[in-house]
Amino acid sequence: MKILRSSEYDAIKAEILSRGDLDYKDINVTVEKIVKNVKENGDKAVLGYTAKFDGAELENMEVTKEEIDIAWERTPESLKNALTEAGNSIRTFHEKQKRNSFMDNSLKGKITGQLINPIEKVGIYVPGGKSPYPSTVLMNAIPAKVAGVKELTMITPPGKSGEIMDNILVAAKIAGVDRIFKIGGAQGVAALAYGTETVPKVYKITGPGNIYVALAKKQVYGMVDIDMIAGPSEILIIADDTANPRYIAADLLSQAEHDELASSILVTPSEKLAEAVSKEVDVQLAKLAKKEIAEKSLENYGRIIITKDLDEAIDMANDIATEHLELMVAEPFLYINSIKNAGAIFVGENSPEPLGDYYAGPNHTLPTNGTSKFSSPLSVDDFIKKTSVIYYSKEALRGVKDTVLEISDSEGLTAHSNSIRIRFEEE
Amino acid sequence: MKILRSSEYDAIKAEILSRGDLDYKDINVTVEKIVKNVKENGDKAVLGYTAKFDGAELENMEVTKEEIDIAWERTPESLKNALTEAGNSIRTFHEKQKRNSFMDNSLKGKITGQLINPIEKVGIYVPGGKSPYPSTVLMNAIPAKVAGVKELTMITPPGKSGEIMDNILVAAKIAGVDRIFKIGGAQGVAALAYGTETVPKVYKITGPGNIYVALAKKQVYGMVDIDMIAGPSEILIIADDTANPRYIAADLLSQAEHDELASSILVTPSEKLAEAVSKEVDVQLAKLAKKEIAEKSLENYGRIIITKDLDEAIDMANDIATEHLELMVAEPFLYINSIKNAGAIFVGENSPEPLGDYYAGPNHTLPTNGTSKFSSPLSVDDFIKKTSVIYYSKEALRGVKDTVLEISDSEGLTAHSNSIRIRFEEE
Repeated sequence: MKILRSSEYDAIKAEILSRGDLDYKDINVTVEKIVKNVKENGDKAVLGYTAKFDGAELENMEVTKEEIDIAWERTPESLKNALTEAGNSIRTFHEKQKRNSFMDNSLKGKITGQLINPIEKVGIYVPGGKSPYPSTVLMNAIPAKVAGVKELTMITPPGKSGEIMDNILVAAKIAGVDRIFKIGGAQGVAALAYGTETVPKVYKITGPGNIYVALAKKQVYGMVDIDMIAGPSEILIIADDTANPRYIAADLLSQAEHDELASSILVTPSEKLAEAVSKEVDVQLAKLAKKEIAEKSLENYGRIIITKDLDEAIDMANDIATEHLELMVAEPFLYINSIKNAGAIFVGENSPEPLGDYYAGPNHTLPTNGTSKFSSPLSVDDFIKKTSVIYYSKEALRGVKDTVLEISDSEGLTAHSNSIRIRFEEE
Repeated sequence: MKILRSSEYDAIKAEILSRGDLDYKDINVTVEKIVKNVKENGDKAVLGYTAKFDGAELENMEVTKEEIDIAWERTPESLKNALTEAGNSIRTFHEKQKRNSFMDNSLKGKITGQLINPIEKVGIYVPGGKSPYPSTVLMNAIPAKVAGVKELTMITPPGKSGEIMDNILVAAKIAGVDRIFKIGGAQGVAALAYGTETVPKVYKITGPGNIYVALAKKQVYGMVDIDMIAGPSEILIIADDTANPRYIAADLLSQAEHDELASSILVTPSEKLAEAVSKEVDVQLAKLAKKEIAEKSLENYGRIIITKDLDEAIDMANDIATEHLELMVAEPFLYINSIKNAGAIFVGENSPEPLGDYYAGPNHTLPTNGTSKFSSPLSVDDFIKKTSVIYYSKEALRGVKDTVLEISDSEGLTAHSNSIRIRFEEE
């Protein structure tokens, strides 16, 4: 890996952030056509695209109970148990995010409050392909169900013979997904946003996907809500000379194997550690199944930056606002309060990022590409919505009448003023 | 007002929702140019547009302390007191929305948690013109400050001689805005999103504006966060025959005076009330300053729907998912739990919408045009962001190791698996 000095920080940051700058104009036009066709022609359009893009001629788009039972039966107990245990851990954490409605009753004759209701209908997108990610199912479906979503619809592209991988169906059963449809791509997003004869319309769509899925989500945003447009993944590790270079190398590589656009950065004041990690990365890289991807990713966006001290490393982390942040320093909890911008903080040398990807509980859907400056991990909050409540008695309204009128009159809105005045006119 | 039956509901709903369907392609191209120019040329571009669109040749874009002091001095005590009192009420309510970070320490050797941090830098847009809205300043700036935003920048378009209306500056002082710039339109949004030599870059932009502002916000969305693209305003009143038709007429008109695209709807099982409200609207309409706007608005999107019973009225309200909902029925609290989709519920006959616009405490920035099915009033939540925390001891990691590996191996990610395994290899 390239080892650089903090004086080169600005250039490194620009490089990393530029990963989001791709030009998708042509794909956008294609996606627009697909979305429009599905909106107008429903199932017929969806079935056509599924045949064209996924190679599957489907009669029935919905996964049946029998298909789920078969997948369940032939999945090894060990994997079912692991997914169930992970699901429980994820559920326990997300239960803690639940919020109560509140009412303020401290003032006589006045009640103001905030009601929490689940979004009634939600759709989740789960990518298909040969290495499907059951963890994606758990991380999207469980918070929705904890929030109380009534109709949770999952879509995922089928294989050529119309099959969905067993571990995806098993994860969906564990997470409590209500209905599953064999649809992917922009056509799947459009089907969820508009509804078709068989696919129910939803109010919000979450979940990762390729560029077609991302652009389709962006196009339907506003009419339905979406979670976020996820960019390429990234990790930043802050380490001092007490850290184990082998662990750091392994964690950098676990990020790099995702994608050639993924970014893996080590920031450390220790020159010795920098050298050791760089060597160790080469040793471990050779053994990986996704060696080519990881190698390309590290070459493009893998960097080791040597800083003056730990404070400078923290400043860089806050400025880059990384998705995953590992703190591999002697007293890691000492630095948590200094981290202002990050998706998730992994504290100490025994909390590697994959622990969070699969098991620890917090969501693995995190803000990427600097967006943790203003956005948050996927959570129960994403599946609820709030409604304000205002109640005043006549006496309470009388008490504030003149104040309200002073402001509404100053804004020149006479009908607003009249709606207050009329309630006291007959007196 | 037009009185219709519930059998015509579908057509009415389609009409109301169609208000969002305008085609803005030409304006979008103009906005794209403005945003690009500001991004590339900073202050120079902003000053040019301010001269062109606002007619103001500015030397200094930032409002000085002296300008604020002068506005404060010449504003009547009564208005300053009213805005201060309203500000306190809004602050008290939003303080209740604040959330604590949490940590789960229930399992030995494992800590998971969720940290709450304010978004560091936020920009708010306040429209200008001859009837400026100080309530907009309070409703955007106070939740930001309650959340702990450090740098709160406000922009608002100046008059021809570079002036900002006194009540806007007074409201900004009361709300605790940090810096104010005399910039409006798409150029203002672009200046906040990219920063210029004088305008600081922010991470999130909130606040209402005309179509140029809305399209500019949409264009910079992703690079910075935005609150929402607000559509035209609306009210839906559910009433039974115990309700006062004069109050209902006044409240419908207070919505209608906003905008020709505003929608004001009464849903009631009482034929008698329907007739009485329709007549009363005509009586009150004649006296309004904004008579023309209100009349046009009612003609376009003002409707009275007679339903079978109150339950049908509630179902319609949930389906329309209105911004403002007034419950003017005999036992209004009985129905609150049946309302699933609404921005704000005004309970009983002495809680008119303008009370919430200015004073009661909950935010007046609410989801419009059916979006309360999936979105929420502006709140402190919009000015914070969350960061997950994961800490495992070595023993805790050992305890879950096999479970994590079962899943990561099933996903085919060998570097993920390796990052767990390597921590136990030397044993």
